[in-house]
Amino acid sequence: MDRGLDRVAVDGLYLATLGFSGWQLGNAAAIAAEEAGRPGLPTLRVENACASGGYAIQLAVDAVASGRRDVVLVVGLEKMTDVSNARRRYWLGVSGDTEWERLAGLTFAGVYGLMASRYEAEYGPVRDALTEVAVKNHANGALNPNAHFQKPVTREQVNSAPSVAAPLGLYDCCPVSDGAAALIVTRPEAARRFTDSPVYVVGSGVSSDHLAVQERKFITRLDASRSAAEEAFRNAPVDRKGLDFLELHDCFTIAELLALEDLGFAARGAAGKMTLSGATRLGGRLPVNPDGGLKAKGHPIGATGVSQAYEVFLQLRGQAGARQVGGAEHALTHNVGGSGATAAVHLFSVG
Amino acid sequence: MDRGLDRVAVDGLYLATLGFSGWQLGNAAAIAAEEAGRPGLPTLRVENACASGGYAIQLAVDAVASGRRDVVLVVGLEKMTDVSNARRRYWLGVSGDTEWERLAGLTFAGVYGLMASRYEAEYGPVRDALTEVAVKNHANGALNPNAHFQKPVTREQVNSAPSVAAPLGLYDCCPVSDGAAALIVTRPEAARRFTDSPVYVVGSGVSSDHLAVQERKFITRLDASRSAAEEAFRNAPVDRKGLDFLELHDCFTIAELLALEDLGFAARGAAGKMTLSGATRLGGRLPVNPDGGLKAKGHPIGATGVSQAYEVFLQLRGQAGARQVGGAEHALTHNVGGSGATAAVHLFSVG
Repeated sequence: MDRGLDRVAVDGLYLATLGFSGWQLGNAAAIAAEEAGRPGLPTLRVENACASGGYAIQLAVDAVASGRRDVVLVVGLEKMTDVSNARRRYWLGVSGDTEWERLAGLTFAGVYGLMASRYEAEYGPVRDALTEVAVKNHANGALNPNAHFQKPVTREQVNSAPSVAAPLGLYDCCPVSDGAAALIVTRPEAARRFTDSPVYVVGSGVSSDHLAVQERKFITRLDASRSAAEEAFRNAPVDRKGLDFLELHDCFTIAELLALEDLGFAARGAAGKMTLSGATRLGGRLPVNPDGGLKAKGHPIGATGVSQAYEVFLQLRGQAGARQVGGAEHALTHNVGGSGATAAVHLFSVG
Repeated sequence: MDRGLDRVAVDGLYLATLGFSGWQLGNAAAIAAEEAGRPGLPTLRVENACASGGYAIQLAVDAVASGRRDVVLVVGLEKMTDVSNARRRYWLGVSGDTEWERLAGLTFAGVYGLMASRYEAEYGPVRDALTEVAVKNHANGALNPNAHFQKPVTREQVNSAPSVAAPLGLYDCCPVSDGAAALIVTRPEAARRFTDSPVYVVGSGVSSDHLAVQERKFITRLDASRSAAEEAFRNAPVDRKGLDFLELHDCFTIAELLALEDLGFAARGAAGKMTLSGATRLGGRLPVNPDGGLKAKGHPIGATGVSQAYEVFLQLRGQAGARQVGGAEHALTHNVGGSGATAAVHLFSVG
């Protein structure tokens, strides 16, 4: 049973937002506290591009663990549609490398297209697996009343879609979405004041990498994902085999495959086969992105990492409705900034 | 004796920056880690306008206190001069209220001008005290080889300067500066590995307030400063009377007077008299801004809060040269975002 939470119990707020559109560009955390009905709250804006949400969760966990705060509100939000597409492209671009990527005309779709091309060169054709990711995540999104796209797509639709950055087509790319998500983070004993069924954060890791893909040792690996997972699993009471589902950062379909490998759920080059086996579907051995992922749920930059944890909260409490992963008790979230310059991984458990 | 610190010992980085000019707008923390020679480091951008630096220090303190990190690098920086003045005004403005202030033409100088006007209406003439703040801080800046303005100004110069936002004139306003500052934050026992004379963070507090001045109960008080100080002094081993000097956020001269009152060093309306008595000069009872303050040292937004702590580091180690506060063992830093929507206060001690 949930007993609610009076907002006066909240004593800290972290706001995760890129804040790149026309609204408040500085000091937005103060507005977040006002809008939450708590002007005067200790409050801070966290900005690590698309990984802002995941990083904000770690800050909240540490603020509580250090004894600094009791009950922290984590808010992720982005309003992406109130600027023109041209201006949005600029703002998004400046979360990636400027010197070598953006000024050369390389968009994020372009960067991930290069990763996919290189992946194919190393491991063979990947189109079928990319299509499976898109079809699966749209199917999941169709079961999520909060998803941006709540409709399934067919393999034919995905395969015949216009090319965006070869080999990536339209259905390989997440949409531009407005959205927000919020969490309450507190100590286990305090959580019991508010609910009989809290969800526990049992691991937290963050990391970074070179901003420009060309500086990295491997183009087909996001090393920040690997090392963030390493920190998250260190001393955690759950291991990879114990997880019931994953929320992965599928800003492009290739990213879901890379994440499976970077995080240690598939051998290098084997994520496509794993995906095509159906293992990552709802009902499969290890469902991935039951909420539809960035692909179908949408990707409101600062909100994404927080919304992944919200999906875990629903799933581990058995409240995910038509997309419920049966008996889920342990889950992982994975949130990436830019093309892998920042990453955050969290582990959650119940019981 | 300092024994240096190998950069591989650093296991976390917080970057404080508004990042409002033409450079990296998102994911800048990843570049900071690269530039520090540690790509891959857990790293995060903190943005609370002009209070970003102070907030970043609290994050570093808590990351170490929670056991998450061992040795954290805090970097504050701003490059303000690579955009035009018109564009800069826009970017600075969006750290204040948009609806009621910026779109009505109210700049930050305008907001602080209103505060000063109201202060005069409540407490009587304040021009002499404002001038004393400007003269004092310029005199201190003249002793600081890292100050933006290293020249004294006379009372006559200040009083005959062009008006910016009455009653504030040119010398009542901090300049537009480029700058950066960095700190290493670690546990006391670890600090001894690197130096025989560390400086201890003995108190840390942050807070916020309504973004728009009109929403606040008092225009002549920054309540965020008051409540940040309350958190910082709670359980601290030093009280106000034990402090040897203060680093206050004097973005405008009136702000230094308000801070003395908000932080509990002067009664309401009495900061002018205290200032005119010479108490806040170098050699006075409680020196304020020995480094020249924002007024003369400069105010590179994200760097300011970090640079205040750097000044404390120098002073408490007896390394502040011509501007040394004799025998200083305890000090306070005070960092404000916008016109008081966010604030951070830290307490430092040696011995």
